[in-house]
Parts: sequence; C-alpha cells; structure tokens
Amino acid sequence: MSSHAVGIDLGGTNLKAALVHHDDGIVESVHRRTDAEQGPEHIIDSVAALAEQLIDAAPSSSVVGIGIGAPGAINWDRTTVSKPPNLPGWDSINLDAALRPRVGNLPVIVENDANVAGLGSACYGAGQEDDSFIMVTLGTGVGGAIIYQNEIFRGSTGGAAEIGHMTIDYEGPFANSGVGGAIEAYLGQEFLSQHARDRLLNHPESILHDRLGNELDQLNPRILHEAARDGDEAAQELLAWAGHKLGCALGAAVNLLDIRTIVVGGGISSAGDFILDPARKTLPKYVVPGLRDNLQIYQEQLGNEVSLLGAAQLAFDGREAHV
Amino acid sequence: MSSHAVGIDLGGTNLKAALVHHDDGIVESVHRRTDAEQGPEHIIDSVAALAEQLIDAAPSSSVVGIGIGAPGAINWDRTTVSKPPNLPGWDSINLDAALRPRVGNLPVIVENDANVAGLGSACYGAGQEDDSFIMVTLGTGVGGAIIYQNEIFRGSTGGAAEIGHMTIDYEGPFANSGVGGAIEAYLGQEFLSQHARDRLLNHPESILHDRLGNELDQLNPRILHEAARDGDEAAQELLAWAGHKLGCALGAAVNLLDIRTIVVGGGISSAGDFILDPARKTLPKYVVPGLRDNLQIYQEQLGNEVSLLGAAQLAFDGREAHV
Repeated sequence: MSSHAVGIDLGGTNLKAALVHHDDGIVESVHRRTDAEQGPEHIIDSVAALAEQLIDAAPSSSVVGIGIGAPGAINWDRTTVSKPPNLPGWDSINLDAALRPRVGNLPVIVENDANVAGLGSACYGAGQEDDSFIMVTLGTGVGGAIIYQNEIFRGSTGGAAEIGHMTIDYEGPFANSGVGGAIEAYLGQEFLSQHARDRLLNHPESILHDRLGNELDQLNPRILHEAARDGDEAAQELLAWAGHKLGCALGAAVNLLDIRTIVVGGGISSAGDFILDPARKTLPKYVVPGLRDNLQIYQEQLGNEVSLLGAAQLAFDGREAHV
Repeated sequence: MSSHAVGIDLGGTNLKAALVHHDDGIVESVHRRTDAEQGPEHIIDSVAALAEQLIDAAPSSSVVGIGIGAPGAINWDRTTVSKPPNLPGWDSINLDAALRPRVGNLPVIVENDANVAGLGSACYGAGQEDDSFIMVTLGTGVGGAIIYQNEIFRGSTGGAAEIGHMTIDYEGPFANSGVGGAIEAYLGQEFLSQHARDRLLNHPESILHDRLGNELDQLNPRILHEAARDGDEAAQELLAWAGHKLGCALGAAVNLLDIRTIVVGGGISSAGDFILDPARKTLPKYVVPGLRDNLQIYQEQLGNEVSLLGAAQLAFDGREAHV
C-alpha cells in the first residue's frame, strides 16, 4: 500500500501530528501540549502515543514512516535533534532509535522545522509554483528554507537558510542571535511589536489606541494586521516598514542563490499583502540587474498544515532523499 | 590519453589561454590583447588561434576539450555567452558552435568567470581544503562562486553567487549595480580607492602623501597594500575598514548557505591579512551562534592561474558535470 505517513510538528508549546495520505493530504490530526518542562522522556512518550494512535487509524500496513519537524540542530543522517531551544534538558537525542521500537519499527526521520515547512510548501502549497524557492517563515523568529531543484538545500551540516539572521544593516539593532541588523530584529514578533508600540506614540489618531487603551504592551502582529485591514494608516505604515526590510534581505538572498521565487509563511504572513506588497516593491532594488527578471513573492496559504504535510513528506521521500 | 585540456580566460582587456595537464597543472600558456572594440568575430578568431596553438603543442589526441571562463550570463547548457560587460557588440553567442569546427571538433564548455575561479581553487588551490566553500574574488568588482559538495552551485539560471551585490546596509552607498550598501560599493577597486583618497585628507602623516604627492587620484589598492606592508597606519586602517565590510557580507552568506569555508582571491587579496584578519574578526559576529564553529577564511595563493586551471577543469569534467 505505502500510501500513508505520519507527520509530527514538535513545538515548544504544542505537539501536533497528522496522518497524511500521499495524494489526499491530511486525513486525521491530533495534538496535545508539549509540556516541555517535564523533560525529554515525557515528550518522547507523547510523540510515540500520538504516532501509535494515527498508525492505528490508518489502513493496515499502509504507513511508510514517521517524519518529525523539530527545532534545534539536526544531524546529517536526520535521526538526532540537538539542543532545541524551548525544550529544556534536551541535549542530543536520536529520535529514530528512541521511537522506532515503539512505532512498529517504522523509520523515523527528523528535519529542522523550517526546512519541513519548505518541503510541505514544495509538495502541497505555494512552493509548487517553482522547483526552486526560498521559504521565509515569519513567527516568533524568522525562519527559512531553501528548496533547490525540488530538494532541501542543507548546506554543510544541515543548518542552511538562516535568512532571519542575515544582516541588512551591519550597524543595526540586535536580534537574539547577536547579529546586528539581522531581519529578525525587525520582523521577529517581539521586535515588530516593540517597534510598533514605539511608533504609535507619534500616531495618536491610530485606532490601535482605541483598541488597546493603556495596554499597548498587548500589541502583537495579529492586532496590527487587523487594524491595517480596517484601514488604519499607522498600522499599514508599520507593516510596510517591515515588508521593506524583508525585501532587502530577500534581495541579498536572491543575489547569492539565483533563486527568484519566494514563499512567505508563518504567523505574521496573515498580514499578507500589507507586508508582501512593500517587499515586492523593494526586492528588485536589492537584486543585481541580471537576476531581476521573474522575481515572485507568494504567500503560503496553508497554515500549520504545511509543517505536518512536510513532516509526512520526509517519510514518503525516505532518509536518503534531500541530502 | 585524455590527459590535457585547454583553459581560456576571456577578459575585457586580455585573452589568456593555457594547456593544462590533469595532474601537473599548467604546461604552457599564451596570451594576447582582447581588442574588444574590434568586435566579437575578432575575439572568436583570437580564441580559436590560441586554442589551436596549444592543441598543437600537446601530445597528439591528448586534449579532451576547451573550457572558457567568460564575463556575462552563461546559459544552462554552458555553450553560450550573453551580454558580457566590456565586450561591445556581443549580444548572445554560442561559443561551442562557433569554435568547435575550428578546434578539431573538441567540446567547448563555457562558464561564468567567477565560477571558473572557484572551480580552479577547488581543484588546484586553497579550495582543496573543503568540499564546500564560498569564493570571493576581489578586483574591479567583487565576484563570487559557491562550490557545494565539489560542484559549482549555479542557482536557477547559472547566475548564483553574486556576493558582491548583497546589501549589508540597505541605506548604504550605491555600487554600479544600483544596489544600496552592496559590498562592491566598499571593496570594488574604484570604490575602495575613492574612499581611501577621501580618508587620507585626515591622515597628513600617511606615507601615501609622500608617495603620491599631489596625484592622489593615482591611488589604487596595490599602492595601498604596499603602504600597509611598509607599516603605514592609515593604509592599514583603510584595509581593515574594507575587511570588516567583507566579514559582514560573508556572515550573511554563511547564514544562508551553512558553508563555513571562505576562499578570497583576486587583485585586492594581495593585501592578504590586512584585509582578511579584520574579516576573520568580524565574520563570527554576523553568523548565527549555531553556525559559528569552524569558520575559515583562506587566501587563494594562486593568481590568474586559478582561472586558467578552472577553465581547463570544465573540459576535464565535461558539460554534464556541475549542473
């Protein structure tokens, strides 16, 4: 049969899992809290339980394997997750060894969560538009993936595509990585919110003041987006500021990779064209003339599913693919 | 036999060609002026003449093909050069079709000149240190190549590795490409010279004033390097300024590619450690912590030969390699 795979999104807050049919996509999904503070063994027990539940729901012997998108560094063989941020007490764990005996000896393949989103987009989402594209995931941080000729470009050690940490202003503000002027320092959720709060002081007319009252610290990208959609010029201007920065970094990435298709996903990207139109306008200005044709920025319309679909795709492709 | 290949460096000023032995390197080399203003047919005649001369010098039937490093855009099949800057009247020419009948029907393979330098470094130079590296060529402009797992990374259309045009300051000065804050605007020969002339006004103690007198417009990177080597602090400071900028851009490239080995070649790189030591100091500060281990910046010790050796390597590898 070989028609199904289990995809798992191992996040710091939530564990999500889906049974995916190769042609039809997500058949069934389940989730539970990660409870990361209870330590790695608890998380592995939870992952095994979710996987078993989904394997039981699939037609007998139809599941080819388990794919897992995880934060942190992944080894070249895609078995082991090391030092994931937000998962305390987790040093380096071989998830294939830990899980395989508990899932009927099916192969367990792990990949960086940003790369998994890229693979999901390539196979099921906006990334189907081109066999090579740069994926940017806007969320708490700014993640990235490079899909080159339908495969994940992994670099030397599996850590490629850290587009959120490329400097676009070498004397610019610092993101958590310590890199000055990295776009995460403009587009990361906390950084964008803080910048918006500061700028709103000059925009007493913004409806955001009505909506947030004295609680400007409650401002987040979702609220900003809603205000922009409702016509608030200050909110639109703030998102355009962020989009311009995104366009600068994407320009640098296009120059280096000669990959002209960009897919933007993640939470902030629900602000859609308020960010992406300014990015589209900026992008060609930061690309060398010979590479300016056919530049495209698409928004990934799939939400979290893209990670579950990409994780399942790891299992469909097998461990040897995309390396 | 299959032991020899002809490598050609098609430059705007000079045509250089070498007979290369697969194991022993350059056996014989010849050159003549390009005389670009006489048009493409004249250039093709000259290339054919140089190639024939070298084929005649090789043991009978030992030459496997002709490789050419050229400016401009190269098509995916590596036959055709389009719109090379500095070669007036040259629109789009299939050099394989034009030359093959004149070189005993040997295959003619063309590649971007920066990529050719990268390939030469990979096979004969500093690039032998790692199977993946980023090559930066400092000269009139700032060129680049990405060698990934021993092959040229070409991107979607063969135009990848334009590291000279990556912005490190989105509101920075403009290079010829029109990209603001691209490192070519700091490290390109004319830009660096101009910056140095401006800065020397604040350094009346610099020996460069003695050496250049009232002719500061004669200042070039070579003179700057000589002054730095002779202990001139102003010259050293200027080269360090350039090296810092180089380190910022390399940091962005490492973040995107997860390729940790850098090879710097080209004219300015004769300034060696006066540029590279500051770049080495800056680089890790612009790389995300997870990718900071094992960063290396090497200087390519081979000069122009690297381009001739790389061009010959194109022929040794054949057209299907590195695509």
